[in-house]
Amino acid sequence: MKITAVIMAGGRGERFWPKSRNSRPKQFLSLTSDGETMIQKTVRRLSPLVDSEDIFIVTNAAYTELVKEQLPDVPAENILAEPCARNTAPCIAFAAAVISRKYDDAVMLVLPSDHLIGYENIYIKTLKKAVSVSLEGENLVTIGITPTYPETGYGYINFGSEAGDAYEVERFVEKPDLQTAKKYLASGKYLWNSGMFVWKVSSIMANLKKFMPDIYEGALRIGESFGTEDYTETLVREFTAFTSESVDFGIMEKADNIFTIPGSFGWDDVGSWLAVERINEVDDDKNYIEGDVISVGSERATICGGKRLIAAIGVEDIIIVDTDDAVLVCSKNSTQDVKKVLAQLKENGRNDLV
Amino acid sequence: MKITAVIMAGGRGERFWPKSRNSRPKQFLSLTSDGETMIQKTVRRLSPLVDSEDIFIVTNAAYTELVKEQLPDVPAENILAEPCARNTAPCIAFAAAVISRKYDDAVMLVLPSDHLIGYENIYIKTLKKAVSVSLEGENLVTIGITPTYPETGYGYINFGSEAGDAYEVERFVEKPDLQTAKKYLASGKYLWNSGMFVWKVSSIMANLKKFMPDIYEGALRIGESFGTEDYTETLVREFTAFTSESVDFGIMEKADNIFTIPGSFGWDDVGSWLAVERINEVDDDKNYIEGDVISVGSERATICGGKRLIAAIGVEDIIIVDTDDAVLVCSKNSTQDVKKVLAQLKENGRNDLV
Repeated sequence: MKITAVIMAGGRGERFWPKSRNSRPKQFLSLTSDGETMIQKTVRRLSPLVDSEDIFIVTNAAYTELVKEQLPDVPAENILAEPCARNTAPCIAFAAAVISRKYDDAVMLVLPSDHLIGYENIYIKTLKKAVSVSLEGENLVTIGITPTYPETGYGYINFGSEAGDAYEVERFVEKPDLQTAKKYLASGKYLWNSGMFVWKVSSIMANLKKFMPDIYEGALRIGESFGTEDYTETLVREFTAFTSESVDFGIMEKADNIFTIPGSFGWDDVGSWLAVERINEVDDDKNYIEGDVISVGSERATICGGKRLIAAIGVEDIIIVDTDDAVLVCSKNSTQDVKKVLAQLKENGRNDLV
Repeated sequence: MKITAVIMAGGRGERFWPKSRNSRPKQFLSLTSDGETMIQKTVRRLSPLVDSEDIFIVTNAAYTELVKEQLPDVPAENILAEPCARNTAPCIAFAAAVISRKYDDAVMLVLPSDHLIGYENIYIKTLKKAVSVSLEGENLVTIGITPTYPETGYGYINFGSEAGDAYEVERFVEKPDLQTAKKYLASGKYLWNSGMFVWKVSSIMANLKKFMPDIYEGALRIGESFGTEDYTETLVREFTAFTSESVDFGIMEKADNIFTIPGSFGWDDVGSWLAVERINEVDDDKNYIEGDVISVGSERATICGGKRLIAAIGVEDIIIVDTDDAVLVCSKNSTQDVKKVLAQLKENGRNDLV
């Protein structure tokens, strides 16, 4: 069966302000020294498994041009432009309906566009296992990440019995507190929920019909109009009417035949500026430095230069990011507060900086 | 007798990089929220004592236009342009020779251009006392600052017997270590050497003749050429031939009749970025913030914004200065290392940034 990939690329990535903006969110940025953007990496690493013409990018209409620029090998008609943000369930239903117009049935890999994978061979092997599990019945497969520490910022997948390469999923759980996260880790029965899914188009459509019939019907109408002159009108009408809902809550927590494959391939969700020193090489003083920077006695600093010189003297555990119109200087303990700056900017109508 | 003032404004002020540059050193910057530059403050605060036409600015030839711009009330012919830097003794000799062409004799107040005075009335009163002491014989008077803590970054003046409003100077001492500075303070016999001097032109010329005859002769020749077409040629020839020497070492440590007047008028030499929070009002979190800045949870930060937004999140005890082509992020413990950045820039031929 044909293997297709649906890359979800509608996110805003506010946590990488000031480099990320409404007009260029995280997936369209390079956060690694190789200059490749997150979405370019996401597509490139799928090449052993999925042909370019079978890669679909679901993104906000505002980013269509960015996708074309950054992914010239993906056919323009595979860029599915959401007229508004409605979370993952409508996004996936939209893509499934379009793919089912092209192929009788197909496997869908549903993948975030802004995560990093350290070991791409193992990643591909894991996806192949997931594909093979997804081919049976109406199995819905999610890739779980083997946790390496009690992270409190992710949801977890609690798995049960072994079933070949996969495990049956008992339940999905929300972000835990530290105590609970430690228990999860000790139990050996929990994985991080990475938001990667594998299923047949027919399987997810059947489950949408059952659990989210409005979205199912709307997606069918969008799919029917795909390639006709009614497409844009239909898409806007149907998509804006969708309830905003995640596929985790809307389908995965309710459906039967949910399986997980534990993955251990150097996954990183690149969730904040703290990730940059993790995913890049650092110098002897544990600094990550890019651009025109003079550092004197600085340690454990992440410094991303722009067009001007940055002189960092005697600073420690700090993040400095320079752009044309804004500079961020942030303690490593405070990266979550970047959103407070964005809130202030919005409140003051300074949308050019958001 | 006429009271004149000689403002020494040739310094480079590297410690305020990146705001200070070779092309605009500290004395031509405003470091206070009122927007007045250091040299403008220096001249303005003299107005109760010295007429504008009796104020002489000795500066580097490169800064003549800056002086004209910032001090439009000072006559252009009073801007004495040094062709090169030769420390304070040649600077003072040059000014004394020029003033002696204008007036038979006059009192000279010799003052740095880049210090702050908190209590200007007391300052003027102190200068008046110094003037009156300077009128007697060939007295050389220096203003000493009553120390408030054992500073190791200044030279000290050790004084002896009281003589009216003044004290006889026993000796000048170099920057002490902390232990010695504490002893100085405890003794009650030491003042900070502020580099402010008061004397008659005839007194300093007599002492130059005695202790620095080459500079005396050269200065006379410059003075004779002043206002003639030979002036520039004479100035360049004589001034470049001067030995570089401070008036402290060249005259004050050797001459007789040296007196000091203790001053206590809120003097601040504004020696580094650390001074900015001292000389300006700070907010409830002890931050000094100017320009377009959003601060979230920052404490004891000095932030000088430029044309772009600075977002400072959770940073403490830090100095952030933004300019068009360079940003400084510096720990308060490391302000002395700004010069290391300048050294690197020079080494790499990046003179546009110096």
